[in-house]
Amino acid sequence: MSHIIQERLSSLRTLMREKGIDAYLVPTDDFHASEYVGDYFKCRKFITGFTGSAGTAVVMQDMAGLWTDGRYFIQATQQLEGSTVELFKMGEPDVPTVHEFLEKNLKEGQCLGFDGRTVGAAEAEELSAKLSQNGVTISCGEDLIGEIWKDRPALSCEPVKELDICWCGKSRTEKCREIRQAMKDKGADVFLLTCLDDIAWLLNIRGGDVRCNPVVLSYLAMTEKEIFLFASEKAFPQEVQQALEANGVTLRPYAEIYEYVTRLEAPTKVLLCKAKVNSLLVSAIPNGVEILDTENLTFLPKAIKNPTEVENERIAHIKDGVAVTKFIFWLKQNVGKIPITELSAAEQLESLRAGQEHFMGNSFDPIISYGPHAAMNHYSATPETDVPIEAKGLLLADTGGQYLEGTTDITRTIVMGPTTDEQKKFFTAVLRGMLNLAAAKFRYGCRGINLDYLARGPLWEMGEDFNHGTGHGVGYYLNVHEGPNGFRWKIVPERNDSAVFEEGMITSDEPGYYVEDGYGIRHENLIVCKKAEKTAFGQFMCFEHLTMVPFDLDAVVPEQMSQRERELLNAYHTEVYEKISPYLEPDEREWLKESTRAI
Amino acid sequence: MSHIIQERLSSLRTLMREKGIDAYLVPTDDFHASEYVGDYFKCRKFITGFTGSAGTAVVMQDMAGLWTDGRYFIQATQQLEGSTVELFKMGEPDVPTVHEFLEKNLKEGQCLGFDGRTVGAAEAEELSAKLSQNGVTISCGEDLIGEIWKDRPALSCEPVKELDICWCGKSRTEKCREIRQAMKDKGADVFLLTCLDDIAWLLNIRGGDVRCNPVVLSYLAMTEKEIFLFASEKAFPQEVQQALEANGVTLRPYAEIYEYVTRLEAPTKVLLCKAKVNSLLVSAIPNGVEILDTENLTFLPKAIKNPTEVENERIAHIKDGVAVTKFIFWLKQNVGKIPITELSAAEQLESLRAGQEHFMGNSFDPIISYGPHAAMNHYSATPETDVPIEAKGLLLADTGGQYLEGTTDITRTIVMGPTTDEQKKFFTAVLRGMLNLAAAKFRYGCRGINLDYLARGPLWEMGEDFNHGTGHGVGYYLNVHEGPNGFRWKIVPERNDSAVFEEGMITSDEPGYYVEDGYGIRHENLIVCKKAEKTAFGQFMCFEHLTMVPFDLDAVVPEQMSQRERELLNAYHTEVYEKISPYLEPDEREWLKESTRAI
Repeated sequence: MSHIIQERLSSLRTLMREKGIDAYLVPTDDFHASEYVGDYFKCRKFITGFTGSAGTAVVMQDMAGLWTDGRYFIQATQQLEGSTVELFKMGEPDVPTVHEFLEKNLKEGQCLGFDGRTVGAAEAEELSAKLSQNGVTISCGEDLIGEIWKDRPALSCEPVKELDICWCGKSRTEKCREIRQAMKDKGADVFLLTCLDDIAWLLNIRGGDVRCNPVVLSYLAMTEKEIFLFASEKAFPQEVQQALEANGVTLRPYAEIYEYVTRLEAPTKVLLCKAKVNSLLVSAIPNGVEILDTENLTFLPKAIKNPTEVENERIAHIKDGVAVTKFIFWLKQNVGKIPITELSAAEQLESLRAGQEHFMGNSFDPIISYGPHAAMNHYSATPETDVPIEAKGLLLADTGGQYLEGTTDITRTIVMGPTTDEQKKFFTAVLRGMLNLAAAKFRYGCRGINLDYLARGPLWEMGEDFNHGTGHGVGYYLNVHEGPNGFRWKIVPERNDSAVFEEGMITSDEPGYYVEDGYGIRHENLIVCKKAEKTAFGQFMCFEHLTMVPFDLDAVVPEQMSQRERELLNAYHTEVYEKISPYLEPDEREWLKESTRAI
Repeated sequence: MSHIIQERLSSLRTLMREKGIDAYLVPTDDFHASEYVGDYFKCRKFITGFTGSAGTAVVMQDMAGLWTDGRYFIQATQQLEGSTVELFKMGEPDVPTVHEFLEKNLKEGQCLGFDGRTVGAAEAEELSAKLSQNGVTISCGEDLIGEIWKDRPALSCEPVKELDICWCGKSRTEKCREIRQAMKDKGADVFLLTCLDDIAWLLNIRGGDVRCNPVVLSYLAMTEKEIFLFASEKAFPQEVQQALEANGVTLRPYAEIYEYVTRLEAPTKVLLCKAKVNSLLVSAIPNGVEILDTENLTFLPKAIKNPTEVENERIAHIKDGVAVTKFIFWLKQNVGKIPITELSAAEQLESLRAGQEHFMGNSFDPIISYGPHAAMNHYSATPETDVPIEAKGLLLADTGGQYLEGTTDITRTIVMGPTTDEQKKFFTAVLRGMLNLAAAKFRYGCRGINLDYLARGPLWEMGEDFNHGTGHGVGYYLNVHEGPNGFRWKIVPERNDSAVFEEGMITSDEPGYYVEDGYGIRHENLIVCKKAEKTAFGQFMCFEHLTMVPFDLDAVVPEQMSQRERELLNAYHTEVYEKISPYLEPDEREWLKESTRAI
């Protein structure tokens, strides 16, 4: 592999010399700022060999570097070996950021190149402002990796389906009317939308162009009268095309968006989100056309699930709960008796989910991690890393499904056999935090930062913590990570996940605890925000558990829990039994009865 | 009174016509943006008759208006009656703000006047920017109220004392060295400081120029080599002058600061806080002199009490605890037997405090409010409102003292006799919140917004709340309200009280519950932030109770509290008994023993 990478770097450098480009930047992004990207877009992997989900490559004549974060230091070190690509460990002392590196190493008269479709406009503007002070120019119109990538996969073109109103609860006509009203309020003539999940939500369409993310590769431009959807016509069955047309949506070739924006004329006002729209598209907008840089108008409405969506999500979570409950029963019955590995367990769970009506696939690559593997937050087993699951210790299963009734995301930590007192102590502490956060009642206006202490408190009291956010927003049969809601104790502006909680927002509640080379614990439910009572002080809000799967009482220490916490757990388990048991076999039901007993 | 106000308005209007001023603005502020102001500065009270602590007057030829907030609607209505001054209820629907009113009512070519010393530079700039768009000019150099106020009190000139290093823990030389380092880091040549508490802190001096606030009326300018203190020389005893001089502090007449800044020359860089320095002073700075607008360099260091200050505060709070404990004992023994009113109770408490060594006076006007009075957050009894305290219901006592060992601020809600189950329910809920917040353990980096839920949770769970912040920073033998620390569930930028908690910060923890026309409950302790353990996750922080006075168990419902909450209360009460009982008479001690019993 390292030999191939060196050849690719050599080809790229030849091309760079021809084009007069002194440094070439290769980010992980597709053209839509997606969190996960299709195979066509994996240029950074192509040029470095590093397969992680986050990272940026920089290639110059005398160096090649890869920047990635702490999750991937070990993996990147292994994968870059012999490739001549140097690893820059982001966040470590004295390691420059990509921008700092470019600022320092590019001299007056030199040129930085990148494919402007893979860099957000806001980031490109910031970079350009810094480099131009040093007399460095930018060339963002060329995809050099594309030129040297001979067997590049084709752009994905999976068939597009309409999502019936019985699933999504609101017609595209109604959604478009509301977005057009928002455009009017902002004084926008054109709304340029390039985020794949937002487009899918707005038009009530689903596809399969990104693994586990049922999105359609497309751009969208909306005016008061027209909607242009730039996408591959081949992906759209006749009846979907007709339905879209009937609602005023005109299909155009995917790449034609760039031409579309060049034809905009002053005094048109274009609303777009510079943090999300790619820089090539923004730079194609003629001077004189005013850009209103705001959050996408679809971003908040998409996150606020309507009553139909919420009701469907409850159903999805019963189906998913049945599958995961059966999975845990199966594990407990068979561990130590038949061979089970992380990968085979994941297969078993997927097949149980597939047995549920309207299952559409996983919502992300399953994380089934046993023992020390569970201490690595982003571990996902491969044939190389797969290990047998034995009748001892803890198994962490963070998985999710896509259903027509919605997206699920659940983590359970399952007792496979003897566990230590320390493991039980932290298992219980994390569970207390999960339950307390879900039981919060609060004034309308609260954000994740107001409530996060509830989840971390039991760990913080012991001087312990976990190094990830406590929760993220979740889409409706769409991306498993979406903003703007979340739980986090510090506001991180670029994460855009600290919105005020609104009725209908679905958020994960997933505190954890990890011991390197030891074990990992995480308890995750999805919870939906609801209105509680309105009093003289205003509207109060609360959450409802959507996820319906028992927590493993084999590792719960009741004495560590307050009376209220035990009541919360018992009430939850009662509800789990009521909702899940009707769909189980007798032996499973009996087991569930015992597993949801009051403590 | 209303007749006198009309005469004063008439004189002001005559003067306005002579000067060509069409609207005259009279804020509450002194020249230093102080929260409380000396009598010399009470121009707004002079021109409207309204005595509240917050409000702004506007006078035009055909109108006079007073803007104030919800706390004062009833009082202002009464005090403005017959005066022709119209009340503008801030925050009510359709009521314009002062700025909106001026923008709407001043026409092209007209002039707005105010004494620029009483309006902050940031606010004046904002107002000026808005009005200049309408062709309105501003005249900020004249004190028209001063011209018509014949028997105006003199500027306060109370004697200045040095605060020995045994009290303040750090010499002025050391403090000035640190501030000069901060100036250097910011590239500032001059640091202009006009906040009275910051100046008193920096120079280790105390005065008495604002009621309950031991500050010295002064301005300060610091350069790398010099410090000029602009203040009345008469206030400084010979030995204080000499000590200041020995440390490089030169005394100048109070008003000479305005001349001082006009002599600054480019390329001098002046650091000042535009939100706090008055607009006349800022406008006197010559063009070309660069202004670095940042928070005062003294603001954060003043809030982080050094170890000597913290140790002294513990002593101050034992003295204060003895006085308040004796007061509660006296109340409980005598209520229903001898006549006691809100005012006479306040006198009794002040005399008990005065019996403590190093007592320097109240830290704010005592709030001793009985029954329904306690539901008014800012009630402070006057001879007109004073009522007898009877042997029933609840008495709320929010009071504080100044000691050489520090500033105290404590609220206890005292059971005077039979109380209702509802009162006990909320008494207990508020107490749970107070205890839980004080018991927080958290990662370094948390702010009040992370922890506020702990105090409000017990009320929010019932759909109840209280309409004030949960806590504020407190000075060291200085102002009872100071930033930048505080507890609040929404960040309010202009309050500047959402700083990261640092070791040594002292904050009040004072949730409450109020029933209009019924009763009021508040429990307030001062708590000091301390370092807890440092672990792999970083530095953990916690709080320590400074205030040492029992909470009235007569209204506590133990069944409403968790085991942990009862333990927190019992541990606190044990500490109170240990620290306070040695200073009590035998009957008081016996009573305290019973009042701090474990529940």
